[in-house]
Amino acid sequence: MAVDANAAIGLLKELRTLTADENGAQRLAWGPLWLKARAWFQDKLRELPVEHHLDAAGNSWTTLHGASQKTLILGSHLDSVPNGGWLDGCLGVMAAFAVVSRVCEEYNGKPPVTLRLVDWADEEGARFGRSLFGSSAFAGTHTIDEDRGRTDATGMRLEDAVAACGVNIDAIGEAAAERKNAAAYLELHIEQGPVLEAMGLPLAAVLGTKGVERHAITFYGQEAHSGSTPMKARRDALAAAAKLALEIRTIATRHPDAVCTVGSVKTFPGIVTAVVGRCEAKLDQRDLDAQILARMYREAQEKSAQFAAEEGCTVEWSRIWNIAPEPFHPRLIELCEEAIRESAGQSHRMPSGPLHDAAEVSHAGIPTVMMFVQSLHGISHNKIEDTSEEHLRLAITAFDKLASKTIDWIQAQ
Amino acid sequence: MAVDANAAIGLLKELRTLTADENGAQRLAWGPLWLKARAWFQDKLRELPVEHHLDAAGNSWTTLHGASQKTLILGSHLDSVPNGGWLDGCLGVMAAFAVVSRVCEEYNGKPPVTLRLVDWADEEGARFGRSLFGSSAFAGTHTIDEDRGRTDATGMRLEDAVAACGVNIDAIGEAAAERKNAAAYLELHIEQGPVLEAMGLPLAAVLGTKGVERHAITFYGQEAHSGSTPMKARRDALAAAAKLALEIRTIATRHPDAVCTVGSVKTFPGIVTAVVGRCEAKLDQRDLDAQILARMYREAQEKSAQFAAEEGCTVEWSRIWNIAPEPFHPRLIELCEEAIRESAGQSHRMPSGPLHDAAEVSHAGIPTVMMFVQSLHGISHNKIEDTSEEHLRLAITAFDKLASKTIDWIQAQ
Repeated sequence: MAVDANAAIGLLKELRTLTADENGAQRLAWGPLWLKARAWFQDKLRELPVEHHLDAAGNSWTTLHGASQKTLILGSHLDSVPNGGWLDGCLGVMAAFAVVSRVCEEYNGKPPVTLRLVDWADEEGARFGRSLFGSSAFAGTHTIDEDRGRTDATGMRLEDAVAACGVNIDAIGEAAAERKNAAAYLELHIEQGPVLEAMGLPLAAVLGTKGVERHAITFYGQEAHSGSTPMKARRDALAAAAKLALEIRTIATRHPDAVCTVGSVKTFPGIVTAVVGRCEAKLDQRDLDAQILARMYREAQEKSAQFAAEEGCTVEWSRIWNIAPEPFHPRLIELCEEAIRESAGQSHRMPSGPLHDAAEVSHAGIPTVMMFVQSLHGISHNKIEDTSEEHLRLAITAFDKLASKTIDWIQAQ
Repeated sequence: MAVDANAAIGLLKELRTLTADENGAQRLAWGPLWLKARAWFQDKLRELPVEHHLDAAGNSWTTLHGASQKTLILGSHLDSVPNGGWLDGCLGVMAAFAVVSRVCEEYNGKPPVTLRLVDWADEEGARFGRSLFGSSAFAGTHTIDEDRGRTDATGMRLEDAVAACGVNIDAIGEAAAERKNAAAYLELHIEQGPVLEAMGLPLAAVLGTKGVERHAITFYGQEAHSGSTPMKARRDALAAAAKLALEIRTIATRHPDAVCTVGSVKTFPGIVTAVVGRCEAKLDQRDLDAQILARMYREAQEKSAQFAAEEGCTVEWSRIWNIAPEPFHPRLIELCEEAIRESAGQSHRMPSGPLHDAAEVSHAGIPTVMMFVQSLHGISHNKIEDTSEEHLRLAITAFDKLASKTIDWIQAQ
């Protein structure tokens, strides 16, 4: 029995009509269009013989009970960034819905294992700066005390915004109860990068999510008059930062999948008539290998100290955030590749640079894999985010095959 | 007869008490403390047999008529930047006052040539971004139509601010009438840089003011996800700008007195999770030699195009402002060096990186020279701006000698 990929694509278009404006998707977590999207999706689920509830962190769970309590979880997130695309997150939810529908029909409502569809709450963190809110509660890695005081652009507190949606910030850890009987987690997502398009491939098995080291680096030199300060007498904080912005590329390219980015540079006083006295750079380093990530971080620190010394400056580092790499389950990666080869002929393996809820689920010890489908132009978090319908059909079909293989794998255990 | 340097230093201290707060001097042009400083100075001038008037641009002229109408002009400016120092500008005015007083006394009120003391209006341009306001009107290089709409931080227009001080913006060109009979212009100023301190010298003859090329340079790359975009797929606008920020130092150091500064870098979107899609840098290049300045500008353009191409970016240049180098009068430079050697033993010749009213006066064809006195730590435009009292005394004494030599030189013509 074939999964109805066209129906899933139809739902994605219906959701876009309902929750996007001329600037893109507006399903900001905890806001009215997100709630509208969730209500619309609940209405679609009524056709299936399923149970539904929200957990303590606002994650939305839909359960199709099977012969075994061993559970395959399929999911992603309905929330979007402001002015987002039509696929980021909701592709995975609609694909999961298509798979659950197919399995339900194939087994007359009683599959061999239990299937659950999850729509994670606030994956993006676009409003309060706390991404993976719901899945971290599920995984037990929530940071309630840090998060309760976060505010959005209007000054509203995270704590109050989630309360308005029925979530008590102090109780979100109870979402860990949803881990009971979980045997595997699968998530389909757009790549959000240019790799598959450049290779001419539709699909990839995801090896895991890269670890991230994110730091603010401040060089301190000496503000001085642009006109009266000889070149040799300068202590130019921008020069040290410029050297580092170039050096991190050398550091990254020693490793095949590593990325290092200086995404922000600020100069002080930042006027053309003054040598830069202070320069703040923000660095993001990622790799799937924890040892490589640690080495790149150490190299960037060493080079920053060298460049500061060369320019008569000092340098200070301040960690903004970090997370360890999360490799996915080896056997599920193999099954994912099999499903892709059977659907699309050729597969590819790649790590994910962006984080996903799947990283939290995997971190909680549940065997996990993700499948990526090609993003056109590598663009996401933008209204022009897109994937060809041919590739969407291939993706949903391959994801369905992966689900079947995973059900078999769970049964065999 | 000796100039009374100590009296001039006393006046500087009195002015500081009157017009500075805990953050430094606050004699912002066209504001109440500037008007207070000018009124205070007028009161000091009452002791001399002089005429006084404001010209059409708000420059303050004090005339001691001599046997000849040929006129030696001495001056600088009483206005300061916000939170400024106690010497920038007013040292030159008080030194001129000391010289006029000495000459007046020596010649019983009737020197061989006419002496005029000028306090230029709004040298700093700190409030409306239009420096050399009064001296450019005097020189005929004013830019009335560009300037009338300028506003300060409160939204007040330049046109209205000067009108409140009795200046009609449309008539400031009439200040050119003050050029009549002008035979030479002398200005004493603090160096505002670290050169003399580094050499252990108190005084220098200034060769002229450097020309300036000031440009905004924007590199356009491609905004992309820091996590999902491989290093080789990036078009990083910051990388191109970083290369240029380093290259302009190589361009400058080919010439002994040239300076090149990237004083501001802005990154867009400027978040750590995105490769920089657009980077705006502001470049300031200066040299006393117009050919060197033109070469440096051309080299920076060529290199920026090269770096843009290397990084898959494009680059656009937009001129912010420029001014030609203004070499001072060769004979007056010699007289200045003689005066310095007679007072301090050893002289030095150097161009001025910062602009000064003297550049406008020289540009108007009036033989001009400036004398610099050492700045401690090279710091200016700051409340810690300072010069040792020993050096201030040497400076006023040498400036007085220069005035005597210049009077002789005017008489001999």
